[in-house]
Amino acid sequence: MLRTALTEMFGIDHPIVLAPMGGVSGGRLAAAVSNAGGLGLVGGGYGDSGWLSRELSLVKSLTSHPWGVGLITWSADASIVELVLGYRPYAVMLSFGDPEPYGSIVKAAGCRLICQVQDVAGARLALEAGADVIVAQGTEAGGHGAGRSTLPLVPAVVDAVAPTPVLAAGGIADGRGLAAALMLGAQGVLVGTRFYASEEALGHPHAKRKLVEAHGEDTCRTTAFDVVRKLAWPEPYNGRALCNGFVKRWRGREDELAAQVDIQQHVYASAVQAADHDVAVVWAGEGVDLIDGIEPAGDIVQRLAAEAADRLGWAARLA
Amino acid sequence: MLRTALTEMFGIDHPIVLAPMGGVSGGRLAAAVSNAGGLGLVGGGYGDSGWLSRELSLVKSLTSHPWGVGLITWSADASIVELVLGYRPYAVMLSFGDPEPYGSIVKAAGCRLICQVQDVAGARLALEAGADVIVAQGTEAGGHGAGRSTLPLVPAVVDAVAPTPVLAAGGIADGRGLAAALMLGAQGVLVGTRFYASEEALGHPHAKRKLVEAHGEDTCRTTAFDVVRKLAWPEPYNGRALCNGFVKRWRGREDELAAQVDIQQHVYASAVQAADHDVAVVWAGEGVDLIDGIEPAGDIVQRLAAEAADRLGWAARLA
Ligand SMILES: Cc1cc2nc3c(=O)[nH]c(=O)nc-3n(C[C@H](O)[C@H](O)[C@H](O)COP(=O)(O)O)c2cc1C
Ligand SMILES: Cc1cc2nc3c(=O)[nH]c(=O)nc-3n(C[C@H](O)[C@H](O)[C@H](O)COP(=O)(O)O)c2cc1C
Repeated sequence: MLRTALTEMFGIDHPIVLAPMGGVSGGRLAAAVSNAGGLGLVGGGYGDSGWLSRELSLVKSLTSHPWGVGLITWSADASIVELVLGYRPYAVMLSFGDPEPYGSIVKAAGCRLICQVQDVAGARLALEAGADVIVAQGTEAGGHGAGRSTLPLVPAVVDAVAPTPVLAAGGIADGRGLAAALMLGAQGVLVGTRFYASEEALGHPHAKRKLVEAHGEDTCRTTAFDVVRKLAWPEPYNGRALCNGFVKRWRGREDELAAQVDIQQHVYASAVQAADHDVAVVWAGEGVDLIDGIEPAGDIVQRLAAEAADRLGWAARLA
Repeated sequence: MLRTALTEMFGIDHPIVLAPMGGVSGGRLAAAVSNAGGLGLVGGGYGDSGWLSRELSLVKSLTSHPWGVGLITWSADASIVELVLGYRPYAVMLSFGDPEPYGSIVKAAGCRLICQVQDVAGARLALEAGADVIVAQGTEAGGHGAGRSTLPLVPAVVDAVAPTPVLAAGGIADGRGLAAALMLGAQGVLVGTRFYASEEALGHPHAKRKLVEAHGEDTCRTTAFDVVRKLAWPEPYNGRALCNGFVKRWRGREDELAAQVDIQQHVYASAVQAADHDVAVVWAGEGVDLIDGIEPAGDIVQRLAAEAADRLGWAARLA
């Protein structure tokens, strides 16, 4: 057991949080992580209320441990925040954009507020919004994010918001990454890509298989998938995904893609239907090098914690 | 004292290597790092033989501890490698490009070969060239580099080249970064930017001051300084620097800059002469957030080692 400010705050066993991956972190995956002693966050994504109601009912039915929900701040609205709070999560995570006014609503409901940020300025905003936990997300992360890298970002955020606990996110896929994050001053980690390649994740089996096969160099940051889906992501965000045929085709020509999006969106939607992942997005972080197989999420939690404890024990002998 | 495969190989006290920063890591800085128990590498840059002869004589006269030299592989030639080996360094570091044929020449001279790489494929090439130590350099590094981030790159390289010792480079500027690197499986760190802000570094005092004031968000990767200096850096390399007026002016218009380089190079050279760092480059990594002052290099070595040992001792109590 690794005891940190995070494990104390939630009364959990391991300082490992499941990233609220939109469309991937459903109730079953969140419950599996929470039942294994981590903190599972359901991925509320762009706020589909039907999906959220179903997955939040599911997580509540599958675990009696703490769990939470993540929302994409710029696409959220008050009604979706109220819907989420109605399920009485232990934590709500807000990412990508100024956490206010939703941060205050979350806090007023007596719920813990986690804010994911991509730079030190964002961390200061999160602190002002009353964040109980701040996630410092590096550019190596799968899914949406920005430009700074995890290793130097985490200590800079720790220094800027102390004593508020900080989690490291981006590129952490094994116990070495967890141990390193703790050395940087983080109180735990937020892990996405590694849990995408789990049995309980909602992704397509073919997409999960691609994660196992891929190398870090096969990922890249792109706006192409947002453009073709007509999602109005603000600056400076883009997303890290497997660099498939679609990304290669449109790289540097995103404006052209935008100009013909009314046609291209149908082509893209058909590819998603057909699970053609040379076109359809597979969000993935640089940590894919460290993923060898698709496993039960609980096993991943246990192994990360055990490997990290091992490393940290060995560290003492080094010093 | 932190004992690792690196400290054993060179018989040094601390697993801290000075990056061979071109024009910055002169003989005085390299000797200061070596005398403090690290490994100082003189920055051979683009291979100016007059500069190298002077700085290598200097380092030899200032330290009896192990020291080395770094060269930029794609710009090196056999004569500069021979010149360097004539000074009998303990190590030669080759960065940026296929280490052969120079790697073999270095090894044949009985000198240790260190190769800096930016991805797993590069690490495999380095291994084939007989590298004794492989540096995994992340995109947060100051100076030239490529796209992968340190935290997920280091364990991937460690796994690919085991049991060859790996150093982490990029974004490491305090003991937290050193401790984290060791947790990732590295046997030490290569540190640039933090030592640039040292008394012994050859940079302009005004540039060093900028490093102290800058934040990680003020840095960016760019090719503009290479274009204006007519340096033919191959793909995929570019350099991380303070994002000054020059970078902002030419961002996205590098082709235009190339087209009028015969005029612009003179404007640029004058700015360098005048130490106008809103035009002249200040290479800097994202770790600048962690730099508070310009200090003697030996103090930096001692503090990094002490902070890391502290962290690692505390780690044991965590586990
Ligand atoms: C498939 C996938 C979907 C994601 N969707 C979201 C999301 O909807 N909201 C969010 O805040 N973060 C999302 N992220 C980013 C995560 O919150 C987290 O920062 C990231 O997964 C951490 O890096 P890692 O993937 O290297 O572990 C997503 C990540 C992945 C891999
Ligand atoms: C001012 C400066 C100059 C550099 N010049 C070189 C160089 O000539 N050759 C080289 O191999 N690396 C060079 N680098 C990169 C370093 O080898 C190293 O990868 C980097 O400094 C590590 O990241 P950090 O700056 O965050 O510590 C330079 C870095 C800086 C900051």
